[in-house]
Amino acid sequence: MVNQNKESKITLLGAGPGDPDLLTLKGVKALQTADVVLYDALTNEALLEHAPAAAIKVYVGKRSGEHSYPQDTINKLMIDYALNYGHVVRLKGGDPFVFGRGYEELDYAASYSIPVSVIPGISSSIGVPGLQQIPVTHRGMSESFWVITGTTTSGEVSADIYQAAQSKATVLVLMGLKKLSKIVEIFKAAGKHNLPTAVVQNGSAEDERLVVGVVETIESLVQQENIKAPALLIFGEVVSLHPSFKKLIKQYASIA
Amino acid sequence: MVNQNKESKITLLGAGPGDPDLLTLKGVKALQTADVVLYDALTNEALLEHAPAAAIKVYVGKRSGEHSYPQDTINKLMIDYALNYGHVVRLKGGDPFVFGRGYEELDYAASYSIPVSVIPGISSSIGVPGLQQIPVTHRGMSESFWVITGTTTSGEVSADIYQAAQSKATVLVLMGLKKLSKIVEIFKAAGKHNLPTAVVQNGSAEDERLVVGVVETIESLVQQENIKAPALLIFGEVVSLHPSFKKLIKQYASIA
Repeated sequence: MVNQNKESKITLLGAGPGDPDLLTLKGVKALQTADVVLYDALTNEALLEHAPAAAIKVYVGKRSGEHSYPQDTINKLMIDYALNYGHVVRLKGGDPFVFGRGYEELDYAASYSIPVSVIPGISSSIGVPGLQQIPVTHRGMSESFWVITGTTTSGEVSADIYQAAQSKATVLVLMGLKKLSKIVEIFKAAGKHNLPTAVVQNGSAEDERLVVGVVETIESLVQQENIKAPALLIFGEVVSLHPSFKKLIKQYASIA
Repeated sequence: MVNQNKESKITLLGAGPGDPDLLTLKGVKALQTADVVLYDALTNEALLEHAPAAAIKVYVGKRSGEHSYPQDTINKLMIDYALNYGHVVRLKGGDPFVFGRGYEELDYAASYSIPVSVIPGISSSIGVPGLQQIPVTHRGMSESFWVITGTTTSGEVSADIYQAAQSKATVLVLMGLKKLSKIVEIFKAAGKHNLPTAVVQNGSAEDERLVVGVVETIESLVQQENIKAPALLIFGEVVSLHPSFKKLIKQYASIA
């Protein structure tokens, strides 16, 4: 049912970290006028209910290490649907430009002269610690935060992590759980054995899970608790503000 | 009209960068059940329309360099209203924990045993570049981004900016316009004279304004265009993806 009368356009829409209520009003409005929704593995399917029943919904399941569709195919699908059906909403987990390859999609659409608009989403890098009441910044404790991908194009740990481990910034690593061993090693090499550290699985979702420790202990905690991807790694003094860290301090004090 | 029957509670709510449609659904729901809203200078007053007509709305106008109320007074107001009226929504620009002193408010409320929940907001550090179609990360160009305050407690430029200028991260400075001279000097000292740079005033709002250049030229551009606070500074190769930067390159090429 190709509709020739509709204007082709694409909206890159950030769905937020998982809780469907963390979508913006602007996002709801975009979905309400969608003819097609292309959505990721990381987006909650409840979000699709904002789109008209008649809209085509296509799962292009893409997450760290498991690409149901290569990026190339997603780009092409997006164009084909826009040309044939009108308004394509490309619904992406978190924010479209935080390691979401959003700019590649925007650029590809621009090469076909299809107008693209961008609607930011809550990035899990900020929102997930926040929901756990871990502030990414706090006076006297952290004047900055540094958000880094754990999974680079080359498969290596990003060189930026070496510098981040030396810095006083709160360090947030997305898609880094598989590289946790290597990342912990980098922080240890920087003398940060006792830096408070947390790992949050499925942040903001109903099945969210969290472990809190220090650089030295975090790997064994993740193994014990069987924490799985998708997960956010949080390194920084601000993690010490989490209630379960305060309990840890009491435990250590009672042992000593 | 003190209501003794209502449960005292506080919601720290991130309003997003300015466009009222960038509020989350969860934020709308919180406002709908507010008895009192305490709001900042940086929040759009249209957001208050989500709160009941009968709710008390108090402007506690707080922005860089101009504090209508000291933080202490805000903390106390928040507690007084929660104890006397029930549900206080503390509506803050951007995200509550990104240089918003949100954790101080949470901590103060906790000392009165008043339950606090946190609802993240779109931080202008990510959302404002995104709306300008400047991605904070992009494959082959930036594997990380570093968000820093330009206004520290001491009034000095954050030490983190010196390290950030040496790094390959996209660097986003909030509340930094007054320190632009000093910050530009730091980037030059790091040899980054030609690093693409943008400044966005009132990001996401209807009166948003943007200048795009390089480290070497950004100060005179800001003066020429009379850019005012609140403004976001963006340093990084990703700025070169903005259409107006592509025009700049053509201009330089035609001069050479």
